[in-house]
Order: sequence, then C-alpha cells, then structure tokens
Amino acid sequence: MNKSNDFFDAITKPTLVIHRERVQRNITQVARKTREAGVRFRPHFKTHQSAEVGEWFRAQGVEAITVSSVDMAAYFADFQWEDITIAFPCNIRELPRINELAARVRLNLLVESPETAAALQSGLHYPLQVWIKIDVGTGRTGIPWDQYEQIAALAGQIAGSSRLTLAGLLTHAGHSYRATSPQEVNALYHETVGHLNAVREYLAGRGFAGIEISVGDTPSAALVDSLSGINEFRPGNFAYFDVMQMLHGVCREEEIAVAAACPVVAKHPERGELVIFGGAVHLSKEVIRDAQGEEIFGRVALPHPQEGWSSSLAQTHVARISQEHGIIKSSAEVIAGIQIGDLLMVLPVHSCLTADLLRRETRVFPE
Amino acid sequence: MNKSNDFFDAITKPTLVIHRERVQRNITQVARKTREAGVRFRPHFKTHQSAEVGEWFRAQGVEAITVSSVDMAAYFADFQWEDITIAFPCNIRELPRINELAARVRLNLLVESPETAAALQSGLHYPLQVWIKIDVGTGRTGIPWDQYEQIAALAGQIAGSSRLTLAGLLTHAGHSYRATSPQEVNALYHETVGHLNAVREYLAGRGFAGIEISVGDTPSAALVDSLSGINEFRPGNFAYFDVMQMLHGVCREEEIAVAAACPVVAKHPERGELVIFGGAVHLSKEVIRDAQGEEIFGRVALPHPQEGWSSSLAQTHVARISQEHGIIKSSAEVIAGIQIGDLLMVLPVHSCLTADLLRRETRVFPE
Repeated sequence: MNKSNDFFDAITKPTLVIHRERVQRNITQVARKTREAGVRFRPHFKTHQSAEVGEWFRAQGVEAITVSSVDMAAYFADFQWEDITIAFPCNIRELPRINELAARVRLNLLVESPETAAALQSGLHYPLQVWIKIDVGTGRTGIPWDQYEQIAALAGQIAGSSRLTLAGLLTHAGHSYRATSPQEVNALYHETVGHLNAVREYLAGRGFAGIEISVGDTPSAALVDSLSGINEFRPGNFAYFDVMQMLHGVCREEEIAVAAACPVVAKHPERGELVIFGGAVHLSKEVIRDAQGEEIFGRVALPHPQEGWSSSLAQTHVARISQEHGIIKSSAEVIAGIQIGDLLMVLPVHSCLTADLLRRETRVFPE
Repeated sequence: MNKSNDFFDAITKPTLVIHRERVQRNITQVARKTREAGVRFRPHFKTHQSAEVGEWFRAQGVEAITVSSVDMAAYFADFQWEDITIAFPCNIRELPRINELAARVRLNLLVESPETAAALQSGLHYPLQVWIKIDVGTGRTGIPWDQYEQIAALAGQIAGSSRLTLAGLLTHAGHSYRATSPQEVNALYHETVGHLNAVREYLAGRGFAGIEISVGDTPSAALVDSLSGINEFRPGNFAYFDVMQMLHGVCREEEIAVAAACPVVAKHPERGELVIFGGAVHLSKEVIRDAQGEEIFGRVALPHPQEGWSSSLAQTHVARISQEHGIIKSSAEVIAGIQIGDLLMVLPVHSCLTADLLRRETRVFPE
C-alpha cells in the first residue's frame, strides 16, 4: 500500500506529475548541444503547454519558442515570450487573432502555398516573418524538397510582399520517429540537412540571401552527434520523453520525466488485472507494441516519495482503456501488494497527448 | 469553396458542431422506448458533458442522470440536476468531494469490493445509495454475475452499514459494442437481463428486497425491441452517435448529431490529400476500419447552411493524425472543389472522446 506522503496524499484523481529535475536535465542536454553547434534553440512548447515549465527553459537561456496553434502562441505571449513560431501551416481563418498577436510579439508563421501567402499579404496589418514549410520525406505536409521551382516561386511571392519577410526553410523530419537505430537517425538528420541546404543554394543562386534552415525532432535531439548545417533547432518531446521514445531507443526510462498518477479503483486478481481511474480522456488512446508484442497504453510504476516514481514494474502495463477506465495487466505478486485507493504512476505512451489532456491537472515533483 | 454563411464564417478553429434537431430526435427515440417499458431513463451525460444539451433531456422529462466522475457530477449539480449516479467504481481518494456532493444532491455510487464499502462506511458524512457493479461478460470491471456468494456478501455488508442503502445491481454490457447484428444485440440484452434477474432472485431468497436492475449501452438503446426486465436504463452515446456506431449497424449516418468543423490548411492533390487543423488533441486517436478495410479517424462532410452538413463524401476519410494535423485522403474531384481556408466537417469515430476534447469549443446548429 502507498505510504503516507504529503505530495501523493494530495492527489485524488488522474494528475500529471512533472519531475522537475528530470525535465531540467533533459533541457540541459539539448541546450548544451545547440550552444556547442552555434544553433538557435527554439524548443517546441506543445509538449508541455505550461508557463511554469517554460520558465525552466528560460532559465537555461532560451528566448525563442515554437508552438503549434494560435491559442498556444497567445497563452505564452501572456507569459512574456516575445519570439514565437507557430509551426503549423498558417490557418487563414484565424487572421484577426494573428494580427492581434503580431502587434504584441515577434511572430513567425509557416507558409507552403501561394493561396496562404496571398491571404496573409491582403489580411495582415503588421509585417511578420514567414518560413516555407518543406517536406523532407515525412509526407505529412509542406512542399517536397525536390520541387525547387515551386519553392522558388513561393519565395519570390513572399519577397515581393510588403507584409512578409522570408526567414527561411523549415521542416519536421517526422519520419525519424520510425528510425530503428541511432545510426539511422544520424543518417536521416544529415539527409534532411543535405536536402535543405541544396534548396538554400538553389535559392541563393536566384538572389535569395540570408535564408535560414530550421529543423527539429526529438530523435535527432537525443541521438545526432553534431547539429551541423542548420540555423535553428525546434524539438519538443525530449523535455518529457515517453514510452514510445524509449521503445524506439531514443531515451532511457530514467529520462522519462512525466507520469500520470492514477487511483486504483478495483482489483481482479483472478484474471491478473487492476482497474485505475485513468482512461482515454486522461492518457489518450495512443497505443504501441512493446518488445513482447503486447499492445500497451502505458507502463506502470509505483509512487516514490524521494524519486517521484520507481522503475517500471515488470510484466505490468495498461492493456485496455475506455473513456475513464484503465485496465492494468500485472503479476499476482504486484497485484497482491497494491490496495484499492493506492496511486499508480502511468508512464505515457505519447507524453504530448497525455500532457495536453491533463494540462489542468498537473503537479510538479517535488513541490 | 464554402459559401458565406454567418454560422460557419464565425468558426475559425476546430469546433464541435452539435446538431440540435438530430440530438433532440435521438433523445426522443430512447425517451419513448423507456416510457413505453415503464423504465427509469437515466441517460449518461459523459457523452456530451454539456449543461445546454442536458436541458434538451430535461425538456423530455428526464430527471435522473448518469456521469462517470465526481467532477462531472459537481458540474451538473451546479445546473440543478439533483439525482446523479457516478457510474464508475467509487474512487475513495475523492471522499471529501463525495461528501460535499452528497450534501447537495441525491447521489448514487458504484461499489464492487468490501474495501470500498468499508471506506465509504467510515468516511461518509451523509447516507447515500450504492449499486453493486456486476460484470455480465464484458470483463472490464465489476463482480462476475455468477459469483452469487460474493455478491450476497457485499450486499450484506452494505445492508449492515448505517451510511449505505443498497439500490440494486448495475452493469454496462460493453460487449454489445462488438455485436455484429441487431439479433445479436437483442440476444445479448436478454442474456444480460437474465443474468441480473437470476442474481436478484438469489438475493431475494436471502432477504434482500426491492433490488433494482440498471443497464445501459447504446447498441441496446437503438436496437432492443422491448426494454423488459429492468428498472433503469443509462445509455449515453446514442444522443450523438458516431462513425463507430454507424459501422456497427447501430445508427444511420443521418442520425450522427455532431461533427468537428476543421479548417483546411494545405492541399496535396498530387497524392490525393488535404491537411486540416484538427488532430489527436481535437478528434482523439480513436481509429476504426471501414467496410473497405481502411483505418479511419473520421468520415468527412461539407458544411451546409440549412442542414448543418452534407452526406459524407465518397472515398474520403481522415487517414492519419498527429497532435494538431489531420490528413484527409480523397478523390481528385473532391480536392479540386475545396480551397485552403474552407471548413470540412469530420464525423467522429468516437463522439464521447471528441466531445470531451472539444468541450470548450462547441456551437449548437442552428444558432
């Protein structure tokens, strides 16, 4: 049974516990790597969406940030962040709020089509910087890197616009999340940077000077040896990491910096299961297969008064979830040691989604 | 391109559009069915979590409601709902808030273990009603229906408690969601009711009188011919329905009563794709395979000024999602007719999760 402890005793429902020391250590690693490479560190704040965690980045010298929506930009602008990139294809339906923001902060937007560039030129009240979104092989969005003429045409449209300044080329190498080794992540990073530098040279040959390159993905943040060939780096998930990154070999379990504290509400030892208050509306339905081929919705640890939480429990995982229920599969020994009313700590499969769902229910450990 | 229309023009970011007439029609169907059967209709409000939608139920005579958390109970208590069942295994860590609620409303809790019953007896300041949670084969939680002695022992503990009154037996036949025909749903309903009545008879033989039976699942709400053999019915999803229920044959597309309006932010006609602002933090990561075997995260329709939205577009679905992006696969014809900045209406795979994610961004259609 959970020992009495002020921090955990105060938790009554699913709550994201943020391990301050681990987060700060994760930030330090990437801050050092970018400093050594002479690259601007513009971390993605969509992972935590927290003003308090934002201050931990600021304490390590971060001044520029990335977000993924106008709402998130407005939230952080209220906390004195003054250089913000919305790393999502510009949503022209939000032009009035973009204008409000552009009046307050140095705002950077992503453009990948002539339609969006034209809408900005006609609708903006303030000049701002735009980046051309490039697809380096992920296939989510952006102009494919090898469509040089299409990129140059958009660069020309932007350069000719009185409202827009072309900052550079921006990509998210999302396919690095499917890489299976550090070597592969390094190779993908250098391929990405090679593609973007080829575009930069092509544009330079057509008179576009000072074009910057911005990349950012967590596998590269953790595993790339040297961040050469870029101007700006925008990873986000690395601050928290999660089971997905661990299973991909990007982090160790001790680097996972958040866990969802969930109360045990029922025990079913006859079938090796526990039920927690903690379901899809708390953890998200993100699922992954572990090394044993089991579908898991989270790894499970015990609260620990000094460490935050223990190592994850062997043969124990969140096996099914519905709206509010999580069903944990575990061994007879583990189940015997846990009582109804105890807390379990769920290491999330995808921390960005869990943090989004629990952003109104967070506690920093230790207090 | 979207025609100008005040309702849709005002939507700038992912927004849940609630089709008032469809919701009211869905409520009417089940209200009539329960009235005809002489059964208490205690709808589950976890699907909509909306005070406004709650009033549409009240207008059809509903006085008792179901929720799935203490927070949700407190929310609806603030809107003059005075008879509330929290249909989730009682979370004893929230006893202080349960006491607050029990002082204000007629509160019903679920109990399935002697530990929880004992914690309630020692921690409650007010008497309240409890239901024994029974597992009729779903395997999520509850005491298995055929464990008569275990159920009777818990009933005895509750009857002997000065704080607790035994209201009855409650189940959620979640396995009805896996049924593949109306016949199978009907058969499962009657099997469930048969199991619960067998337990009721067993308890009656041991002196427990007036034990009620409460069941509730959307396939039964839609497809069971006669709600015989029960006292109370608690379905939730039927108010909105969704693509999952449609693919299971539980509803027709015209009965789906919510859609997430999402702005188009990029077009990739060369690979038959559109990108919307609408991802996992708006729609959830709930996924299902359609009749063609494709994994889908939503069907897609067009906004319609009179109808709310059109029939779903052929050969068009949300094929991939990340935190904020939705990638829609579609035909060349459909893509050619859609412009950046238009809205698309995503029919959710699982409306409860989408409504939870967008509960601060909703609009009722028509205004």
